[in-house]
Amino acid sequence: MPKYISIAKAILRYIQDNELEADDKLPSIQVLAEQFDVNKNTIVSALNDLERQGVIYQVRGSGVYVRGNNRKGYINLLNLNGFNSILSQFNIDSKVIGFELMEANEEIAENLKFDLSREDEEHRVYRVYRIRYIEGRPFCVEESFYAKAIIPYLSEDIASGSIFKYISQDLNIDIGYADHYFRVAQLSQEHAEYLNLKKGDPSFYLESVMHLTNGKPFDFSKIVYHYQEAQFFVQGTNTQMGY
Amino acid sequence: MPKYISIAKAILRYIQDNELEADDKLPSIQVLAEQFDVNKNTIVSALNDLERQGVIYQVRGSGVYVRGNNRKGYINLLNLNGFNSILSQFNIDSKVIGFELMEANEEIAENLKFDLSREDEEHRVYRVYRIRYIEGRPFCVEESFYAKAIIPYLSEDIASGSIFKYISQDLNIDIGYADHYFRVAQLSQEHAEYLNLKKGDPSFYLESVMHLTNGKPFDFSKIVYHYQEAQFFVQGTNTQMGY
Repeated sequence: MPKYISIAKAILRYIQDNELEADDKLPSIQVLAEQFDVNKNTIVSALNDLERQGVIYQVRGSGVYVRGNNRKGYINLLNLNGFNSILSQFNIDSKVIGFELMEANEEIAENLKFDLSREDEEHRVYRVYRIRYIEGRPFCVEESFYAKAIIPYLSEDIASGSIFKYISQDLNIDIGYADHYFRVAQLSQEHAEYLNLKKGDPSFYLESVMHLTNGKPFDFSKIVYHYQEAQFFVQGTNTQMGY
Repeated sequence: MPKYISIAKAILRYIQDNELEADDKLPSIQVLAEQFDVNKNTIVSALNDLERQGVIYQVRGSGVYVRGNNRKGYINLLNLNGFNSILSQFNIDSKVIGFELMEANEEIAENLKFDLSREDEEHRVYRVYRIRYIEGRPFCVEESFYAKAIIPYLSEDIASGSIFKYISQDLNIDIGYADHYFRVAQLSQEHAEYLNLKKGDPSFYLESVMHLTNGKPFDFSKIVYHYQEAQFFVQGTNTQMGY
């Protein structure tokens, strides 16, 4: 990991530990450099990184300020993967309602970039079907497919906890980036029952494809959120808008 | 603008001009450095920037590859501001159904960070209420409030086109970042009529606060999307997950 990334994480921890809020000012670059015992260039790179993450904003000639989600109860969509850690202030449970090792169908193969015509390729996936609860209330129904070629082992027991933590910490797999596709839909009878809602009620429907750092997709998930429980937050960044 | 940012934009144009698709490989850093006549460090910085934007991914020891929205018809939420340019392959129209200069109420003041107790502060906002059409079909109903202190002039005529373009190009204002809050809701009678839907139908409800580069919010928008017309895409990035 480049030095500036570890410094960026350290500055983020500093913000959290000091409970800095939106628009609070950070110490100067000079002071941060002394505090973290690195040169100013490293601080500048770390701050640029944090700006890209939407953690801070920099005002030329004035200083560096904390950005922030000013609204409580909104989930940061770009942090969905670390679901358990992000919502750590809440009590999160998972109930596994389906678990199997199966052959990928066309939809799964397309999202995980399997070539179904190749017989020498592993096309099996672990299918994990879970209801997730927040403070005991049904929050979402999640159907995930993990490529066995990348995630060699999963169990119902592991799936009842944090799969993300298992993959990153126990299997020590480098999780890269995720693509999220979402839309609004009407609940099916089955999903409605799991979420204690009515068929036809609105729902937030998310499909995510998670990749390793080398670009290989390893997880395709379809998640149906309870429309009254789930609210989302996304921070745009400077340069994304400039392009 | 730092050199590497302009090079990042040039590489993005190269990707677009050559119609590179997801997982296509970019030329080597050496070749890019020669092509753009800059040193390799600048290329490395530009590529890191593009990786943060979700434009490319880098595989150590292998090369640089194009990421991509593999699904057509999805709107990149993080590019919502340049709405007209992003959906440029479609025919976009706006019909202004309300336009006024008004005093901010508490909700607007909170989002635009006005201090209503200060009498010397400008608390007026331009309210623009529009229906937006994609290929002639109602796509969303958008109610926006622009701080007059920052956007000194707006007109119904300007609002019938791209306000974003007017602000960034004509007023030459540096648009910074946006915060997006969204949830699923049920349509009101009024919105249902504008969108040719029924009261109670699902809707994607987005609130956005746009800021200048100095962190000042200047636009608070509430947008109700047609649930059958709007599908969204968000690219997560490596380091956001790592934090």
